[in-house]
Amino acid sequence: MIRIFGLSDFPVVRGPFDLDQEIIACLKRAPLQLGCGDILVIAHKIISKAEGRVVDLRQVEVSSQAQELAARTGKDPHLVEVILRESRELIRVDQGHLITEQRLGLICANAGVDRSNSGEPDRVVLLPSDPDETARRIRAALAGEFGQEMAVLIADTQGRPFRVGAIGTCIGIAGMAPLCHLGGRDDLFGYTLQTTVEAVADELCATATLIMGQSDEGAPLALIQGYAYQPQPGSSGELLFKPEQDLFRA
Amino acid sequence: MIRIFGLSDFPVVRGPFDLDQEIIACLKRAPLQLGCGDILVIAHKIISKAEGRVVDLRQVEVSSQAQELAARTGKDPHLVEVILRESRELIRVDQGHLITEQRLGLICANAGVDRSNSGEPDRVVLLPSDPDETARRIRAALAGEFGQEMAVLIADTQGRPFRVGAIGTCIGIAGMAPLCHLGGRDDLFGYTLQTTVEAVADELCATATLIMGQSDEGAPLALIQGYAYQPQPGSSGELLFKPEQDLFRA
Repeated sequence: MIRIFGLSDFPVVRGPFDLDQEIIACLKRAPLQLGCGDILVIAHKIISKAEGRVVDLRQVEVSSQAQELAARTGKDPHLVEVILRESRELIRVDQGHLITEQRLGLICANAGVDRSNSGEPDRVVLLPSDPDETARRIRAALAGEFGQEMAVLIADTQGRPFRVGAIGTCIGIAGMAPLCHLGGRDDLFGYTLQTTVEAVADELCATATLIMGQSDEGAPLALIQGYAYQPQPGSSGELLFKPEQDLFRA
Repeated sequence: MIRIFGLSDFPVVRGPFDLDQEIIACLKRAPLQLGCGDILVIAHKIISKAEGRVVDLRQVEVSSQAQELAARTGKDPHLVEVILRESRELIRVDQGHLITEQRLGLICANAGVDRSNSGEPDRVVLLPSDPDETARRIRAALAGEFGQEMAVLIADTQGRPFRVGAIGTCIGIAGMAPLCHLGGRDDLFGYTLQTTVEAVADELCATATLIMGQSDEGAPLALIQGYAYQPQPGSSGELLFKPEQDLFRA
């Protein structure tokens, strides 16, 4: 049996704050018994806010490329400028959408820049600077505080080609293998052994998103118990195709 | 709290069998208390087998198109022929991969045809004929047997663009809305109200896949308790973009 607990009483804070201590305090308040092998999933937005990865659009100077893309997509030019600064490459611009390779290598809408205009319509939240590094740091803090080796995942809710709706997706990881390699014969006559790979870190973040909700009113932390992962340092980059491997990149 | 139970003692059967009765028997054997609002997730393969959606590749006559695609991809021509028969349209053929629009409208590798060569290397399993209809029938059977209104999801494990590894994905649904519409202002200055959509049926199937495993040795049934879904007839087609809506279709 796998169990998922949502932790909803994380404080709503403005400006930089001590994320690790707030997470630890939130876990201590929860009626939970943490154990070795538990997985803490963190909604990326509280990490971005703790890191000050928030931009006031009124202070953004708009380039001519951003002006042109804003005209094509009907988006705010200041927002497009921020998206471009967060991106390595434009992947698709169509039907009012802007899909880019975000600087971490993720391919997603708007480079993960979220208007999240709850009260502050001129501010946007960016993805965290280095989610893997943050996950490692939080994992170490949890081990130090609770004496338990846990895995930490950082989730974002992202759209995808072909299918309607967004799902929770892993953008940062520490302490577990993001992929589970299932040996299996894929060749018809058994001549070749191929491997089937399951993106368990994405499945775990999708699971956590069910309980987190997507809005600021939701639970930004979820604890998953009972899933036997493979302990490893882990890197979210393992979840990303190299451009030349991806059939839908070209 | 959400809880997920894997039910692993579903019998390994060959040839057509009474799926509904086997599922009911499996649920009765499990140490579970079923309740209204529970979600039963079924791995598609037991449905396909129950429906006889299994093809002996030795009996497949290969068309010239299949021969040509087999040469391009390095796949078995008989397998390619079956994939083509299950497909409406070729989406990508590259690097040994064949991505098609399967006849249900799903875009996936090999039209969901699975070699699954456990003991029978010349047989392949197709996706179920009409997973929504099957989900509805099973849902009614469960209500009749247990007196509980549950939702039923049918899961397949599918790859996706941009990200490494496959994840559990919903291909059939009954009794719940596959999408959760989260009202939210997406416009920068609050002039327009847009809606964020979360594909909760896909997230639930990803969750179930964590406990099912992917091989025949895994649990083909998973029960999810504690997730508050929106009761609705539901249709898996709601999870699919229309071709003209999809930025990655062209």
